[in-house]
Amino acid sequence: MAEVSPDISPLIGAITGLASGGKRLRALLNYWGWRGAGGEPLAAAPVLAGVALELFQSAALIHDDIIDRSDTRRGAPSVHERFSALHRTSGWDLDGERFGHAAAILTGDLCLSFSEEAFTAVGAAAAAGTRARQIFNAMRAEVMAGQYLDILEEVAGPSRPRGTAVSRAQNVIRFKSAKYSTERPLGIGGALAGASDDLLAAYAAFSLPLGEAFQLRDDVLGVFGDPRTTGKPAGDDLREGKRTVLVALALDAADPPRAAELEQGLGHPDLGPDDVDRLRGIIRSTGALDATERMIEELSGRAFDALSGLRVDRDVRDALEALGLAAVQRTA
Amino acid sequence: MAEVSPDISPLIGAITGLASGGKRLRALLNYWGWRGAGGEPLAAAPVLAGVALELFQSAALIHDDIIDRSDTRRGAPSVHERFSALHRTSGWDLDGERFGHAAAILTGDLCLSFSEEAFTAVGAAAAAGTRARQIFNAMRAEVMAGQYLDILEEVAGPSRPRGTAVSRAQNVIRFKSAKYSTERPLGIGGALAGASDDLLAAYAAFSLPLGEAFQLRDDVLGVFGDPRTTGKPAGDDLREGKRTVLVALALDAADPPRAAELEQGLGHPDLGPDDVDRLRGIIRSTGALDATERMIEELSGRAFDALSGLRVDRDVRDALEALGLAAVQRTA
Repeated sequence: MAEVSPDISPLIGAITGLASGGKRLRALLNYWGWRGAGGEPLAAAPVLAGVALELFQSAALIHDDIIDRSDTRRGAPSVHERFSALHRTSGWDLDGERFGHAAAILTGDLCLSFSEEAFTAVGAAAAAGTRARQIFNAMRAEVMAGQYLDILEEVAGPSRPRGTAVSRAQNVIRFKSAKYSTERPLGIGGALAGASDDLLAAYAAFSLPLGEAFQLRDDVLGVFGDPRTTGKPAGDDLREGKRTVLVALALDAADPPRAAELEQGLGHPDLGPDDVDRLRGIIRSTGALDATERMIEELSGRAFDALSGLRVDRDVRDALEALGLAAVQRTA
Repeated sequence: MAEVSPDISPLIGAITGLASGGKRLRALLNYWGWRGAGGEPLAAAPVLAGVALELFQSAALIHDDIIDRSDTRRGAPSVHERFSALHRTSGWDLDGERFGHAAAILTGDLCLSFSEEAFTAVGAAAAAGTRARQIFNAMRAEVMAGQYLDILEEVAGPSRPRGTAVSRAQNVIRFKSAKYSTERPLGIGGALAGASDDLLAAYAAFSLPLGEAFQLRDDVLGVFGDPRTTGKPAGDDLREGKRTVLVALALDAADPPRAAELEQGLGHPDLGPDDVDRLRGIIRSTGALDATERMIEELSGRAFDALSGLRVDRDVRDALEALGLAAVQRTA
């Protein structure tokens, strides 16, 4: 890239910054999926696949933050904000916000390409037609489709039947997040090591409910999380109008005036701390928070039951259990 | 995708619509690059690689149109405009323009993934570490880096030395367009068929100057093109503030008051037909249009000289010549 121009370095810097942080849940699940299927501990394949997964996640976050107009990510400026700041401090011409969005779209695209380069570098086990490649391809398409359903729900949700809102929200989290955060990474690691169909199905029985619980926890944190640990402003999901399972449950259970109040507040970028508190109160009073916590518990229970029946080495099971617990009990 | 939700169909429709049109310059160069290196006429590899190149181009156009705020593409609404229109006709909530941009970011990402799927499907000749894969990887990174340099020049250009503006603009077109539109597709086709380094170098001696001439033609059309044939509003590049070689030459040659007038007009989204005419007059009067046409001629001459020395079958040379002429003489 330096050959093209030294001006490219902020794109690489943005990707490096993002890829250096985070929980690395996907890379770790991929690694233990590899190990559980008999893969060698120090092989290159799961490392390269892990890099591909983390770079894909970085690309998704960069574009997601533009879409959601999120100015912070993990407590630091998001990538489009970094570029707007570069515009500001450099005293450049024209609109800095527009420049920031444009530069972040391109940085995300570059990151997506790097992800693919890393996955191809795995070699024969990830070549055309392999199981691992099929899962990787499915994962990418699912995430983008799921993210579209998510933004569609923000705009189309209010005029669609309230009775199906919860199941629509569940469909969103399945594709946007659950499969992608847990089932697919674990499956790719397994497939790279030549896992049988039975083992992949057993992996999914653990990881899909875990991923759904993981995303429900994310939804709770998006409304009730502490900004000091999430690195995101309080009530950010309300301001963005995210129609999560939590919100759908609340709308479904609220009496008409409170449902209208919640409906009114969703997606308003200028909600203040008091507004957020008021909407939180509505969600809590409908029992939606308790119901979501119960769903997390039920899904986690199902995941850990499946894990206990999984025929893998003890150290693999221990590692998966620790990752699973971290995913559903997290505060950030 | 239908398995995820029927709501996904507009994304697929947008990609299909875009990929069904266009000149298919890249797929055709890729095919004749394959043939020139002795590839079988009816093989699957160049078809799959051609699909990958055209889908990559579609993805780049989708994101480029968001970045440039272009509302039309080939005379039809651009993808973000299609989604804004869907929002409007469906009577959905919140901001339709923002929804359009978000949906188009995701559609471009999906299209980028489909491009990669097609390229991987080529199989062994495009596997990890092959020459074809190296060129494909380089091409993607170059395009995104070149596009970034392009938008950077829009904002940083006015405060950078005018004396290097022409060479900066040439660097932008080399990476954003010239290599990508001609050199890389031809090289990938050749590499897939096992072309020698000498043949690839001979391909580049033809295709790189051709690609630069192609982009200079594009720059001329972006300012002086007829909207009825380009499918873009007249003077669109001026409104977007594109600092092309044509514009850099004009700024360099204009006297201070006219340079200031041109500088002032660049990047103003509300330039009317009269303003565009006035700026066109400045560019013409500085001799920048003539100089650009001479550059196109000189580059084309170099390209076709190299073509005449290329050691390939007669029908391959004829096909490359026809594609080359179409690229530099086009009106759309």
